[in-house]
Formats: sequence, C-alpha cells, structure tokens
Amino acid sequence: MHPWIAQRTQYVDSSGIRKVFDLAAKMRNPINLSIGQPDFPVPDAVKEAAIAAIREDRNGYSLTQGMGCLRDKLQAEVDQQLGHADRRVLVTSGTSGALVLAMLALVDPGDEVICLDPYFVMYPALSQMVGGKIVKVDSYPKFRIDIDKLRAAITPRTKLILFNSPSNPTGVVATQAEARAVAELAAERNIALLSDEIYRRFCYDAPLASPAHWNDRTIVTDAFSKAYGITGWRIGFMHGPAELIEKMTMLQQYTFVCAPHPLQYGAAAAMDVDMQEHIDAYRVRRNRLVSGLRDLGYEVNDPGGAFYAFPKVPDGKGTATEFVARCIERELLVIPGGIFSGKDTHFRISYAAPIKTIDRGLEVLGKLR
Amino acid sequence: MHPWIAQRTQYVDSSGIRKVFDLAAKMRNPINLSIGQPDFPVPDAVKEAAIAAIREDRNGYSLTQGMGCLRDKLQAEVDQQLGHADRRVLVTSGTSGALVLAMLALVDPGDEVICLDPYFVMYPALSQMVGGKIVKVDSYPKFRIDIDKLRAAITPRTKLILFNSPSNPTGVVATQAEARAVAELAAERNIALLSDEIYRRFCYDAPLASPAHWNDRTIVTDAFSKAYGITGWRIGFMHGPAELIEKMTMLQQYTFVCAPHPLQYGAAAAMDVDMQEHIDAYRVRRNRLVSGLRDLGYEVNDPGGAFYAFPKVPDGKGTATEFVARCIERELLVIPGGIFSGKDTHFRISYAAPIKTIDRGLEVLGKLR
Repeated sequence: MHPWIAQRTQYVDSSGIRKVFDLAAKMRNPINLSIGQPDFPVPDAVKEAAIAAIREDRNGYSLTQGMGCLRDKLQAEVDQQLGHADRRVLVTSGTSGALVLAMLALVDPGDEVICLDPYFVMYPALSQMVGGKIVKVDSYPKFRIDIDKLRAAITPRTKLILFNSPSNPTGVVATQAEARAVAELAAERNIALLSDEIYRRFCYDAPLASPAHWNDRTIVTDAFSKAYGITGWRIGFMHGPAELIEKMTMLQQYTFVCAPHPLQYGAAAAMDVDMQEHIDAYRVRRNRLVSGLRDLGYEVNDPGGAFYAFPKVPDGKGTATEFVARCIERELLVIPGGIFSGKDTHFRISYAAPIKTIDRGLEVLGKLR
Repeated sequence: MHPWIAQRTQYVDSSGIRKVFDLAAKMRNPINLSIGQPDFPVPDAVKEAAIAAIREDRNGYSLTQGMGCLRDKLQAEVDQQLGHADRRVLVTSGTSGALVLAMLALVDPGDEVICLDPYFVMYPALSQMVGGKIVKVDSYPKFRIDIDKLRAAITPRTKLILFNSPSNPTGVVATQAEARAVAELAAERNIALLSDEIYRRFCYDAPLASPAHWNDRTIVTDAFSKAYGITGWRIGFMHGPAELIEKMTMLQQYTFVCAPHPLQYGAAAAMDVDMQEHIDAYRVRRNRLVSGLRDLGYEVNDPGGAFYAFPKVPDGKGTATEFVARCIERELLVIPGGIFSGKDTHFRISYAAPIKTIDRGLEVLGKLR
C-alpha cells in the first residue's frame, strides 16, 4: 500500500457487486439479475418538476437541511405517521449520505455497531471507516431476528444497532413483533437505533412495521431513489430526535453541503405520485421468482419486500462464489452471499427486471441445480 | 451534549457564514456581500444538457468514478494541461466531496495537516473530523506564502499540505514562484499536497499557477460549481496519482456513491461553454471594490482571483466580529475574519454581486470608517 494511504481504507475494497457490474458491461446480452435499482422509468411529473427548477434558476446551494417545500412535506408525512413531538427531518444525498452522517455523528473510535448478518455492504465498511467495530448477529437460515441473540451481542461499548427492513440482500420484512422487540431493547439499554427504510415502499404482503413506532428516538433513513427510479439523483432523507438531526445537519455543512438543489424539486413532486402499480408489478415478479426457485428445488426464504431473494446454493455445488462463477459463465449475473455476510453459502438474486429476464435466469438456475 | 453524540462533532459548529445567511433571509433588502456563489445565470447549453439527460432516463446510478463522456473530457483537459502519465480523474460531489474523500484516504488519526491561515472553513473541520491535527501557518498581513514558515511547520507526523489559490477568503493568487516552492517542498519531504483549485477560472491578472506543474503527485480538487453558477448541482472532480484516485473511488462507493447522474451531462456540456465574459465582468467589480475600499482608507490586500477581498478592520473599531455586527445593523452583510482564521481582525467581502450592491456596500463602509 502507498505510504500516504490512511489505515481506514483497508476496510473498503472494490465491492464484489461492482465486479459483477463490470462483467455485465462487457457482455452482449447478459441475464442481469444483479440489479440494485428499479427498472421502471421516472414518472413524468417528477422529471418535469426537476426540469422546471433547472430552467427557473434553482441551481445554487439549497439550505443545508434541504429546501423548505420538500422538508415541510416530509415533516408533515413523518408527523402524520409517527406523531413524535421532537422528530425532525433532514434532506440528504441519498440514503448513503444519511448513513455517513449518522456514523459520523454517533460512532466514536472503539464503539460497537450491531447489525444482522447478512447485512447491506455499507454497514461494516462505514462503521469501520469511522473507527467503530462492527458486531454481526447471525440470522441464518430464515433471516429473522432472534432478540435473545441480539441482546447477547450488546456490551458496554455498543453505541448503535443498524436495522434494515425490508432487507438488502434477503428481502425479508420484519414482523411487528420483531420490530417492536428491537425497538424496546434499544430503548431499554439506551442504545441508538437506526432503521434503514430505503425499501419501505416495496412491501408486498403488509405495510412496513417501523421500529420508530415503539421507540421515539429511532433514527430513520429513507430515500426517493428506489421508490421513484431516481437512484442517480442522490436525494434521500432522514428523521430522528431534533438534537441528533441538528448535529447531522452541521456535519452535512462540512461534507455533502446539500442534496442536489434542482432535483429536490423533483423529489417534492414525487411525493404526490402514486407508484402502487409498479409495486404490484414487482409483487407478481417476486411470486414468479420465488415459486420458480422452489419448483427447481432451491431452498429460499420468504422475501416480503425490497426486490431481492436470497436462495441457498444447492448442496454439493461449492461456495456461493464458485456457484456464481458458473452462473456468470452462462451469462446469468447474480451476487455471491459472501459480499453481504460472513458466510458464502447463498446468493442474491434481484427481480428488478422484466418477467422474461427472470424466466431466462430460472432456466439457467435449473441447469445448474 | 447528548451522550450518543460522537466526540468528532465538537469540531463542527453551525458556521458563522450560515449565521449571516440566516440573518440575510430575514432582511427585506440587505446589501449582501457575504455571498459565496456567482450571481450569473447558468448557461442555457448547460441547463439543456441536464434536462435532456433527465428526459432520456439517465436517472439511475452513474459509474462510481463518473460517467465516461464527462471523465474522458476531463482526462483530456488535465492531460493537455499537465501531461502526467500517471494522473487519473474522479468525478465527485462538488469540491467538498473531493476534500472529504482526500481526507478519508490520506489522514490517519494523529496525522498533521498544514494549511495557511486564513483558510477555507472546511479545512480544519474536515481534518479534525477524521482524527487529524490541523497546523495553521500564519500568512498575515499580505496573505502570501512564506516558504520558510511552511517548512518550519513540517514534523514527522505531517501527512498533507492544503494549498488554495485563488484563496477563499482572501482572494490572493499564488505566484509561479510561490506555487513552485510549495510543490518542491512537498516533493522533497514526501508529503501529500492537495491543491484546491475551485476558483481556478476566476483569475483576473494571470492564469493560475498550479503546484501540480512542479509536483506530479499533487492532488487537485476542482469543480464546475463556481465557474458555471451550479453550486447546487454538486458536481466537482479531482485528479491525482492513479493509485490514490483508485482508493478515493473505492471510498466514494461507500459514501457519496456517485455525483448526481443527469447533472453530470450538464457539466460535460459546460466544458464547451466560454465564460470569459463573466470573468471579465468580475474583474471590473474586483477593481471597483478594491479601489473603493482604498479610497475610503481601508487597508486591503491585492485579490487576484476568486470573488473576495479581505480588508482589515480600521484601527479602533474593535474586533471583526464587533465591526461586522455594526455592518449588519446597517443591513450590510459581510463575514468576520475569525471564521477563517485564528485572528479576528479582517472581514471577507464578496463581489459576486451587482455593481450597484457593491457601491451601496462601500457607502456603508465609508460611514463606519
């Protein structure tokens, strides 16, 4: 390593997802089920609001905390959902921007951060980047929360629990009982709880149970990216106790400065657009993929949300990395579980793709069984 | 402080600039010379390229390193300017995004970071946020670089020198001799050198002398924000030795993800737009402000670039904070030097404002003399 490079960079690597994307870019007609963003087009009303803002010279800095008309709408929505007196909203540069601010604001060197395993790839990387220690709680084989295991992972250095429902990579949605148990555990032990709800709108069987309903100090991160197909716009938001949000706003001044200003107008317009038709289409794809996998004999969990399933590599077919290499030989792009986990036994398959592509993927998986 | 809040947040505070902005928002007709962004409109070609990208569904993630057509243009420009074989470009979320990535990639806890005093407000905050120690080298009264003082500030823990020409807040542009001396000192002592060139295009008397000309390992941060009036778009870039840029690209994957994708098309179009007319207009304003200040008896440096001057508070008129409070009583908004410096003896006055506003500001300053 170059002598100038800081120690903390050892925790980041060109992510395995990126490597699969790079492969995809070289293939003529890949069966791409590695996708982490929706495939529907951005609603016209959203595009036109951003376009009008660009034309009308809303191109300078916005307020650090986000432009008023977006923040007011978000605050009203959050107040209506949760009714917490002390809860404030901050517009961020995507959910990742919100996660960075939360880590900077909460995690001191040596602090412990708990997440379930499997986990979203950013959680360990960001925790370690700010000097924290990530503590992973195994959730195999059903990827449900075992509250006793979670409680056992808490130590005097535990600062933060990262909760993600619907989950990337498993697609699992926590039940009310699970969300409540985590919320109450964090409150009881006076530990910060961050609920990453970026896939909130992608719940197919029941509305999301947010732990914030049972713990009014929960920090929630959310975004427009996945819900409206604008992952490249970098507009997200977070909400939580006013004092914490105020600190994160200050940190934003010195890091992200503000979310892209004209695109915030698009996000404000998005709040009036009904995306249910797309969610319904994704439910159909979810059903197709999961029943297809089961018909082929794959062991797969019940993904109630997001747009991923996390099936087990068939017995005798090696590690997930080895299995995925064989998928890629047949132009099927999926992601090995080792990217999201201490175990390399499962793979992430996305259904943010046309039914025809899902069927082509199932065909390859049938041959590799 | 709330017990959950991390120690590093002690280094950030709602910046004094922000406080002046908040005051400005409450005034009916302020004489606003506190502005940190240009007042010209974004060129139509830039707007239309971003609008077309939104319409044509370029709304998903871009490549982490920035979309190819923008990166290729930037790489060609940088290669043509510097001709370094090993230099690579990374598209970032503004200059602040580039600074964050550089700090994360280079500064370990306990490392020392050198900057001139006065400095851009983010330098000490970001250095300390990643655990570094900021070492300030006094450049009063002329705000020129004393290479012997800089050399004397170097210790075995020095990791990075932050160089900023044209400077915010002083407007001072380093001479060729100064830039070369800093470049050679960093090379000789094997210390990383970051040249923040966000105001590069705002040089009124001579083209910018970048230290990268004399030190091929210089990391340069730059942006479209100030040059094209798109500070709210969050599009910047950096370039430097390939190995360092690669690490920063990995760090970007876990933090900023990518610069706003459709707006990158606007930035690519901007590279073909000639802004000289605006630069010439700013030169006229610079001359008006500086000669106006001198006519009133203010002691002021020679600001060769950016859009700021940094005059001294007249003798007997108290600290800069006290003097600025009296300016604000008369609806003139300027920024006290203590925000940018260990000394609170000067104030930053921006000329990114119409001549009429500059003249109104001079009138108030005449009365406060």
